[in-house]
Amino acid sequence: MTLRRGATIGIIGGGQLGRMLAMAAARLGFRTCVLEPQKDCPAAQLCNDQIVAAYDDVSALRQLADRCDVITYEFENIDLDAARWLATVADLRPGALALEIAQDRLSEKTFLNDHGIATVAFRNVGNAGELDEALAEFGGRGILKTRRLGYDGKGQIRFRGDGTDPTSEQALESLGNVPVILEEFAPFVSEISVIAARGADGTVVCFDPPGNVHEDGILATSTLPGGVNASVESAAKFAAEQLAGALGYVGVLGLEFFVMEDGSLRANEFAPRVHNSGHWTEAACVVSQFEQHIRAIAGWPLGDGKRHSDCVMHNLIGDDIARIPALAAESGVLVHDYGKKESRTGRKMGHFTRLVARIG
Amino acid sequence: MTLRRGATIGIIGGGQLGRMLAMAAARLGFRTCVLEPQKDCPAAQLCNDQIVAAYDDVSALRQLADRCDVITYEFENIDLDAARWLATVADLRPGALALEIAQDRLSEKTFLNDHGIATVAFRNVGNAGELDEALAEFGGRGILKTRRLGYDGKGQIRFRGDGTDPTSEQALESLGNVPVILEEFAPFVSEISVIAARGADGTVVCFDPPGNVHEDGILATSTLPGGVNASVESAAKFAAEQLAGALGYVGVLGLEFFVMEDGSLRANEFAPRVHNSGHWTEAACVVSQFEQHIRAIAGWPLGDGKRHSDCVMHNLIGDDIARIPALAAESGVLVHDYGKKESRTGRKMGHFTRLVARIG
Repeated sequence: MTLRRGATIGIIGGGQLGRMLAMAAARLGFRTCVLEPQKDCPAAQLCNDQIVAAYDDVSALRQLADRCDVITYEFENIDLDAARWLATVADLRPGALALEIAQDRLSEKTFLNDHGIATVAFRNVGNAGELDEALAEFGGRGILKTRRLGYDGKGQIRFRGDGTDPTSEQALESLGNVPVILEEFAPFVSEISVIAARGADGTVVCFDPPGNVHEDGILATSTLPGGVNASVESAAKFAAEQLAGALGYVGVLGLEFFVMEDGSLRANEFAPRVHNSGHWTEAACVVSQFEQHIRAIAGWPLGDGKRHSDCVMHNLIGDDIARIPALAAESGVLVHDYGKKESRTGRKMGHFTRLVARIG
Repeated sequence: MTLRRGATIGIIGGGQLGRMLAMAAARLGFRTCVLEPQKDCPAAQLCNDQIVAAYDDVSALRQLADRCDVITYEFENIDLDAARWLATVADLRPGALALEIAQDRLSEKTFLNDHGIATVAFRNVGNAGELDEALAEFGGRGILKTRRLGYDGKGQIRFRGDGTDPTSEQALESLGNVPVILEEFAPFVSEISVIAARGADGTVVCFDPPGNVHEDGILATSTLPGGVNASVESAAKFAAEQLAGALGYVGVLGLEFFVMEDGSLRANEFAPRVHNSGHWTEAACVVSQFEQHIRAIAGWPLGDGKRHSDCVMHNLIGDDIARIPALAAESGVLVHDYGKKESRTGRKMGHFTRLVARIG
């Protein structure tokens, strides 16, 4: 299936990722329809049409399928039954398999390992006894994470093995006694990510991996080049290609890695969507990750992924958004405000990318 | 006046220029409201709000003033009385003076000359006798142009002095007996233009002048660098600065020049708005002409106007728009489809910019 100009792309989710996807789609000659319960959401401000309803509202999804030639999503926590049903009545790209794998940290890490992509060691823990055993195996240290619905550092408890840790019962209780896994603490020296696009014809194109810095569990900066050598870059891209192929993926995904002291990589998690650590592509590449995703799901050829400049992308969290006019006064800075009315602590309000050097 | 995030910018006119202004405004955190009689126009697809009404509908303009913090326009043929009235009840940027001057080729050329900017010689001709006299003065050759409402080569008759010309009566008749001027034929060797932005504080920033090629009176390509030496570039930028200053202008304007064999310049016309020959800035500059215009009218600092790459922008006219998927397969090409449903001969449907070399 190749979309023609004037075709309509459905986007489930109306946040900043949907907003930037809608802008990219418009430039390529496509129309967009966003499904999002919140009116006047960031994406609704730039799309052609909005269906105001819950993401799992079957009658709304039916409407979306009726109005759109292809449907995609901007976040991975879509109700899986709704996504599977949607895939039977519409072209859903990427498909439901990527959602199924990505929604559960256990299936995600298992899938990665099964396809030759190393992760940190992890244990599925069903109760306090199993958590005690797993902690003992990992030397008393590790990160307990909810299997589902964690993001930006939420749904995590760190065991430091220094006597300050909660008991296993307390930890499980404080996460709401939901399914969890314990991950071994990885003594990583840095973090990188690969934004990869896989076209409908199976072609994979990767952007260069940025070096990422998180603060309070939220991405703070992505820097190009990413501070690793060419072998590490290639290994990261190769892993992203393997993953995209194994998922039969169509679209853009983001795969995050820890970089160990010896340069080896441990995949942390992947997002079956455009990714915050790819926002710099809007400023430093001819074809951004947003356009790349639209090209992929439209059955179009992919862009080449090259960047014309080194750069640093900074997130603007909460009241940081007030920095935009001052940032605009700097040379070589591209700013982006997501159009969210209320600024709240920890809320992603915008970002900016500073080009630091041209490359050629 | 400095606009704050969430402020609303009114745009009179809903074509591709309004569309690209709306996208730039959104990225800076502004909302947009477009006044345009055609529903689902290119700009309406990307703005927050549309008032569907004629450009000179006073009650619609009143609504626009009520809803917006500043008002701008994407085309120069706005009813002048309506614009003047609007400026009394709202912040209109650029102001009505630029419209008044630009709407009439006689006042435009007179204004340019009065501010030290050379144009080709011209004569105001009120009747066939005056046209005969002016033609005699110019050696039988020249271009007869309607004073108002000409664009893309429309409203023009060329006198070649080779025996094939119409009589003066016939020529005036065929232009509808509207006010006209005769311009001396300029034996130019090339055409360039300057896209200049003047901020609310009087700062002027120019983009580098592209070399422009017209086909059938419509811009075909804009190429950077523009094929003139540094002195000619500086002279063109200086003229644009003088013009913007003389008009007390706030926003982006486009000033077109003929380049003569000796490198001297003759200003042809200016547009009090973002300009087709500045579309390349979207691909080759961090801050595009569209963002630059929004920054200016918002009272924000301007971008620096630097380009990171040499490039060529091509218009996609009529059925050329079907080339987009193939162009997207090339490396270093940024495509832009304006979202117009019907492709007609001579209609601007989109453009693309090919980056040809990085500079630095």
